[in-house]
Amino acid sequence: MRIFIAGVDGYLGWSLAQHLAARGHKVAGADILFRREWVEEMGSWSATPICSIEDRLAAFRQRYGQELQFWPGDLRDYDLVENIFREFQPDSIVHFGECPSAPFSMIDVHHSVFVQTNNITTTFNLLYAMRNIRPDAHLVKLGTMGEYGTPDVDIPEGFFEIEFRGRRARLPFPRLAGSWYHWSKVHGSNNIMFACKIWGLRASDIMQGVVFGTRIDGMEKDSRLLTRVDFDQAFGTAINRFCCQGVIGHPLTPFGKGLQRRGFLPLRDSMQCLTLALENPARAGEYRVFNQFQEIFDISELAHKVQKVACQMGLPVEIRHLENPRYEAEEHYYQADHQQLFDLGYKPSHPVETEIAIMLQDLLPHRERILAKQDALIPDIHWSGQRSKTTFLKRAQSVA
Amino acid sequence: MRIFIAGVDGYLGWSLAQHLAARGHKVAGADILFRREWVEEMGSWSATPICSIEDRLAAFRQRYGQELQFWPGDLRDYDLVENIFREFQPDSIVHFGECPSAPFSMIDVHHSVFVQTNNITTTFNLLYAMRNIRPDAHLVKLGTMGEYGTPDVDIPEGFFEIEFRGRRARLPFPRLAGSWYHWSKVHGSNNIMFACKIWGLRASDIMQGVVFGTRIDGMEKDSRLLTRVDFDQAFGTAINRFCCQGVIGHPLTPFGKGLQRRGFLPLRDSMQCLTLALENPARAGEYRVFNQFQEIFDISELAHKVQKVACQMGLPVEIRHLENPRYEAEEHYYQADHQQLFDLGYKPSHPVETEIAIMLQDLLPHRERILAKQDALIPDIHWSGQRSKTTFLKRAQSVA
Repeated sequence: MRIFIAGVDGYLGWSLAQHLAARGHKVAGADILFRREWVEEMGSWSATPICSIEDRLAAFRQRYGQELQFWPGDLRDYDLVENIFREFQPDSIVHFGECPSAPFSMIDVHHSVFVQTNNITTTFNLLYAMRNIRPDAHLVKLGTMGEYGTPDVDIPEGFFEIEFRGRRARLPFPRLAGSWYHWSKVHGSNNIMFACKIWGLRASDIMQGVVFGTRIDGMEKDSRLLTRVDFDQAFGTAINRFCCQGVIGHPLTPFGKGLQRRGFLPLRDSMQCLTLALENPARAGEYRVFNQFQEIFDISELAHKVQKVACQMGLPVEIRHLENPRYEAEEHYYQADHQQLFDLGYKPSHPVETEIAIMLQDLLPHRERILAKQDALIPDIHWSGQRSKTTFLKRAQSVA
Repeated sequence: MRIFIAGVDGYLGWSLAQHLAARGHKVAGADILFRREWVEEMGSWSATPICSIEDRLAAFRQRYGQELQFWPGDLRDYDLVENIFREFQPDSIVHFGECPSAPFSMIDVHHSVFVQTNNITTTFNLLYAMRNIRPDAHLVKLGTMGEYGTPDVDIPEGFFEIEFRGRRARLPFPRLAGSWYHWSKVHGSNNIMFACKIWGLRASDIMQGVVFGTRIDGMEKDSRLLTRVDFDQAFGTAINRFCCQGVIGHPLTPFGKGLQRRGFLPLRDSMQCLTLALENPARAGEYRVFNQFQEIFDISELAHKVQKVACQMGLPVEIRHLENPRYEAEEHYYQADHQQLFDLGYKPSHPVETEIAIMLQDLLPHRERILAKQDALIPDIHWSGQRSKTTFLKRAQSVA
């Protein structure tokens, strides 16, 4: 299959390119390398050292025996996208070409506008290029479980059947996102649903849980193949941040009570699930939604898991709760469906603890890199608009 | 009350400025005059001749005895918005500063991206300026009944209480908009709902039905006070288009079966309702949704009403159905609540037929202007992406 990855230089994009190439797919990609700039703007860098895109592409060629055709451009430029589609003629398009950070979108009006207009524009350009050049191609779009928020009822996969005043209908499940970034994903989901309806396009919208992990199999063989692992407040996801904290002996920092419940999955499971979606494409005109995660945990539980594994490895670390810079429910009902990917064959790789052990092992050699940017671990972007370092809470508000 | 109108040069903006000034409110506004350019791009102009913004402001001063403070700028520029708020210190903000056309948003990728990013950016700038400068001000945002689409169940006002798998919750009612423009309004509604939640802002989101009418009382006294009345495929609303067609003897042109049901209200009722929302502001942190229309009709019914009134005035006109350039249900269930504005005191001015008679009378002197641009009456923007003049259907698919 010919697969184009928008945002191929990112955490998921670079991993997926390798996972797909290893399975014999032909991969191409585009990226303007914004992620590198954004993380730098947050005063940080990847815990794993990342080489230049040129070196990445050379390593890719050597290891997978195929050229990864690459366009170093801005996907907000429609002509670029159309030219890529004409040249590469993708069967599938994976859309990671968005800014993926909630805190980054909350910094100020300029960041909010940037994140939403960037994400809307890249999505439009891909949809229009599909309609105009590759109407039978299949779009796999990265959404987020965060689109749903915490609605106090079960979360289905995208749609639900309801009865309202005596009539029944199947409707999109209401979204209650928790940041301007998360809302940008809702806007994208709505736009894609409509494009499938009016243009007969095929799309799988992936409501992904919080992903974690330092690598997929094979990356360890050539350091140029490593994907990035961010730990700053904006681009680091929860377990990745905890593991980086664990490695340098920095307290693990759940926000507030730490009882926020979310779906999680290792990077390798994300690759497995995205591949299942790609290899089992949606039908013409079909807009389908997958909730993609392995298991649901609360944030404190995860901190305790990281603490336990770190301790076993001789890395004692404490858990200290931080003032919550976000506006979110810290104790809430959370039950979400995630059956469809299992129906397609998803098999979780291993327990969270196993992945955490691999991560800590992978991160240990990069201790100095994390230490050098440890200031980026403590958030200062508040949902209120205030910009000041959060402080540790006197006592953990959650008791396990 | 000090009221700032974003988009004060438009159909609703210019009318509301006068309606509010006549009630003794202090009005200011901003506009970059895009609407004039967009209608020109559609090969059309306002049926009523519109004078320059300078002449409009001079006439306003004479008639209402107050200066309408005006900023001729682009509301996508945040600094401009913040400066306006600092200088004018509004108690209320009315947001008409968006591109309001479904067909315009469907022209091509550039128009789709423009409409959504323009509408998102102006909304963000107003929300941030409220948060930063006037956190107690009240936002009255123009949405559209089109955000809901035609969902096959009753449409509540923004939110509904549901039971799902044994749990109950009050959730935003799912949206099923029918164009990129309508989706831009959904994106805006979602963003505003979230801003109220995290920043404690006050907002009334107006899901307005299809508005029609040539004027509000008082405008007839000075032709410089007239508001614009568009009849082109993109900026002309259904009854306005039918009345312009009636005046020149052009067939009235429902799309497809013409059984699409929508809520409608005269321009003067829109002014009355918006004023009720302004004079009864939302509470701090409250995001409330009003469905704003007088009555529900199907498009063919309205064509027949216009035909009947025109005939009584000696303007015989036929009804000829056009191929539907849109992707929409032409026969569907439609039942929508609109109680809250009645509870605040909304009293419909008069039957639709009375308003139609006033309109036809107002438009007769401008017959030549409509004739000169009659080519703009027949749509060529198709939801499919095709661009070609729609053709008349052999026989009306709807029978009254």
